[in-house]
Amino acid sequence: MRFKRNLAAMTDFYELTMSAGYLDEGYQDKIAVFDMFFRRVPDGGGYAIMAGLQTFIESLEDLSFMPEDIAWLRAGGTFDEKFLTYLQNLQLHCNIWAIPEGTPIFPHEPIVTVEGPAIECQLLETLLLVTFNHQCLIATKANRIVRAAAGHPVMEFGARRAQGYDGAYYGARAAYIGGCGSTSCVMAARDFGIPASGTMAHSWVQMFPTEYDAFAKYARLYPDACVLLVDTYNVLKSGVPNAIKVFDEVLKPMGKRPKGIRIDSGDIAYLSKKARKLLDAAGYADCTICASNSLDEYIVRDLLLQGARVDSFGIGENMITAKSDPVFGGVYKLAAVKQADGSYTPKIKLSETAEKMTVPCLKQVWRLYDADGKAMADLITVAGETVDAANGITLFDPAETWKHRTYTGCTAKCLSTPVYAGGKRVYQSPQLDDIRAYCAQQVANLWDEVKRFENPHRYYVDLSQQLWDIRARLLEEMSQ
Amino acid sequence: MRFKRNLAAMTDFYELTMSAGYLDEGYQDKIAVFDMFFRRVPDGGGYAIMAGLQTFIESLEDLSFMPEDIAWLRAGGTFDEKFLTYLQNLQLHCNIWAIPEGTPIFPHEPIVTVEGPAIECQLLETLLLVTFNHQCLIATKANRIVRAAAGHPVMEFGARRAQGYDGAYYGARAAYIGGCGSTSCVMAARDFGIPASGTMAHSWVQMFPTEYDAFAKYARLYPDACVLLVDTYNVLKSGVPNAIKVFDEVLKPMGKRPKGIRIDSGDIAYLSKKARKLLDAAGYADCTICASNSLDEYIVRDLLLQGARVDSFGIGENMITAKSDPVFGGVYKLAAVKQADGSYTPKIKLSETAEKMTVPCLKQVWRLYDADGKAMADLITVAGETVDAANGITLFDPAETWKHRTYTGCTAKCLSTPVYAGGKRVYQSPQLDDIRAYCAQQVANLWDEVKRFENPHRYYVDLSQQLWDIRARLLEEMSQ
Repeated sequence: MRFKRNLAAMTDFYELTMSAGYLDEGYQDKIAVFDMFFRRVPDGGGYAIMAGLQTFIESLEDLSFMPEDIAWLRAGGTFDEKFLTYLQNLQLHCNIWAIPEGTPIFPHEPIVTVEGPAIECQLLETLLLVTFNHQCLIATKANRIVRAAAGHPVMEFGARRAQGYDGAYYGARAAYIGGCGSTSCVMAARDFGIPASGTMAHSWVQMFPTEYDAFAKYARLYPDACVLLVDTYNVLKSGVPNAIKVFDEVLKPMGKRPKGIRIDSGDIAYLSKKARKLLDAAGYADCTICASNSLDEYIVRDLLLQGARVDSFGIGENMITAKSDPVFGGVYKLAAVKQADGSYTPKIKLSETAEKMTVPCLKQVWRLYDADGKAMADLITVAGETVDAANGITLFDPAETWKHRTYTGCTAKCLSTPVYAGGKRVYQSPQLDDIRAYCAQQVANLWDEVKRFENPHRYYVDLSQQLWDIRARLLEEMSQ
Repeated sequence: MRFKRNLAAMTDFYELTMSAGYLDEGYQDKIAVFDMFFRRVPDGGGYAIMAGLQTFIESLEDLSFMPEDIAWLRAGGTFDEKFLTYLQNLQLHCNIWAIPEGTPIFPHEPIVTVEGPAIECQLLETLLLVTFNHQCLIATKANRIVRAAAGHPVMEFGARRAQGYDGAYYGARAAYIGGCGSTSCVMAARDFGIPASGTMAHSWVQMFPTEYDAFAKYARLYPDACVLLVDTYNVLKSGVPNAIKVFDEVLKPMGKRPKGIRIDSGDIAYLSKKARKLLDAAGYADCTICASNSLDEYIVRDLLLQGARVDSFGIGENMITAKSDPVFGGVYKLAAVKQADGSYTPKIKLSETAEKMTVPCLKQVWRLYDADGKAMADLITVAGETVDAANGITLFDPAETWKHRTYTGCTAKCLSTPVYAGGKRVYQSPQLDDIRAYCAQQVANLWDEVKRFENPHRYYVDLSQQLWDIRARLLEEMSQ
């Protein structure tokens, strides 16, 4: 039932010109290592949430250039037949490692690594980046909003304001990983198994002779899921009184309890408190109040701080586009090239700022947990290094190396997980519900200081001594 | 060759609960009128660009609920068999009008209108909104950037930072309508006939023993499209000198001229001027300079004001996500309901602010052009009203009604164009190149005052006397 499409052409044209060049140069068997990483957490947050892995690995299974693609490329005149034949017969041989979905991730660490023929590394670049950049962005934003909601359910309903159908579809998936409880998007609910939510728009209320008629009809039709939108005319003078009347006159005789009301405009703090009183006084203390209308993490937090009597939040455009900071900014950079003797030549991209410098080598990311399971720091090592935290481990800041800390009683877990080996999938993605639960648990294992919205503590992402030495040597060589 | 998929499930769940309710209530033949309009131009601009129509009407042709959809809905338990059967046999009967793609559009005017059975109107809502909200957003942003570029070509290359695959794909389409000259996205280039652009990444340069080797290889392989990325190591000390060396040693013997260099980091104003001097001195005054790296309309404008010697711009994340204001915010509101006698009951949604008030009735949008073809004002009328501008026409501000202006020598053109009639497509979308040309021409017909980035003149969107009277009467009635 899941929707399939071939995304081979979801690539930048320069991936093709470069690939054709590598083939022409005889580099088709040259093995390269590319990392995806990001440099900055959106919204100034302390961590991001990994998302998009299952989508990415499933897209690889369907990946092939179709005869129409080849014909179109041929007609363009840029490429020779040798390359077109190569594309048409494209088979993946690469190894891919990734940090599992739902994991909190931090700047500069490789969240996805591709090792394989340089051509394959390039051909996957755009697809890889758009997939993870999008889903990490939305999962991260959703997690902020869910955190602000402090245990109150958050419903994703941004489809209409999403940036395209996939924005809505995969955005709903990512938002669910980040902790939302449901989506309004039927396609996403159907394909990802996310609970679907949604009741009525203002147009429903307007379509009937009166607000009462509209509410009564809805209550009769959906007595077990009766949530009424109370702000079409006037929340306190009309909407809530009519809702209560319908609860009394329609639901009560059916032996049913109302599920809730929704307020989609006006001052939510004020209206929710007043509505709560009216509902309580009428004997509907169990009737929940849902708030929507351009909410984000800051408004949600403030509403709760102001004592708004809101039980759940519906979040639209601000989450589905990550409106306040709508670009994740992940990049994909060459980290090493394998030599004929099997050794790796580490590669580094210099930059005027240390911030933009890349980290060379085929690497792994390790996370240190203390005895209580709290995440203390991440350590990036050269692949194959063993990390033994049992007898205490000393980490140092890669820029300000005199800052070092020794951790005792920690356990180290390697986050870099093989997902493709030799062009074949070797990873079974967990169920989406399990990813979501894992995310919640991993976020719970972060220190509160890292989770502040404003000016969070910078989580340590350090390099192993071996990796630091290689990078220092390369920098030294290149500055000569 | 065009990619097809069934988007019936790209809908919010509440469209289904409402539709089932209308069916159950016997409202399946109740004819409603819904308008899509927007309230605010993104980025504080003076106008937006209409885009997404062809995508929307093509999606309608493929629209149907599949047996799997029905089975999934049945399993959910919310809907009865009558409604499921209705959905499975869904046939459109509606009429749709829209403003053609590429047209400058303004707040509060209906850019799309759907008239038909209320159920159909609801079932189309989400798909309609996400399609137009996305493409109008990107076309509008692209048009700002293209305007800032003042005639220098703008290349769209944001795919990797887009919000999902459709963000890249339809975003490239919308950016082209807005005036971009090419896209990096192969899938969009293939399906929409947009010129594809792209040459090399830093990884290409890093993959070869030296920068010179990388450039020389590229020049030999693509002598007619040789654009070299000169900032992998050092633009002025290494990149440009190596490029010139390759132009001399590889292209010149082939009788070829270089096409350009690209600078993707550093201070573009400074580097481009220095690079220009080096190229000119070496006899390559015809070699263009392309700039990229997180550009937007403000940076492009400033670069040109500072005399940067840039010939073309590559724009990524800031355009493909409309980063500075990433939500178009179009809404879809009930405007009228047809009665048994064939007359329309106009509908209005009250709000605390005049800004958020809707405009009732089945309507049309007219644009007044002066003798020079400049757009003077838009006039929203009740459908069927004739607008005769030949003998002078007086418009008044719908809020501040004492402000009126009389236009003489104007012609009025109806922008609301039938695209669906009785559920059948009656509109043939122009070719994308023609839409793009039409957009450029229509934007040229706007006053410069409307095109300012900061604090633009508010273009007049007025109501006809008849429409104003209906709205005033409704407001009067509802406030009693």
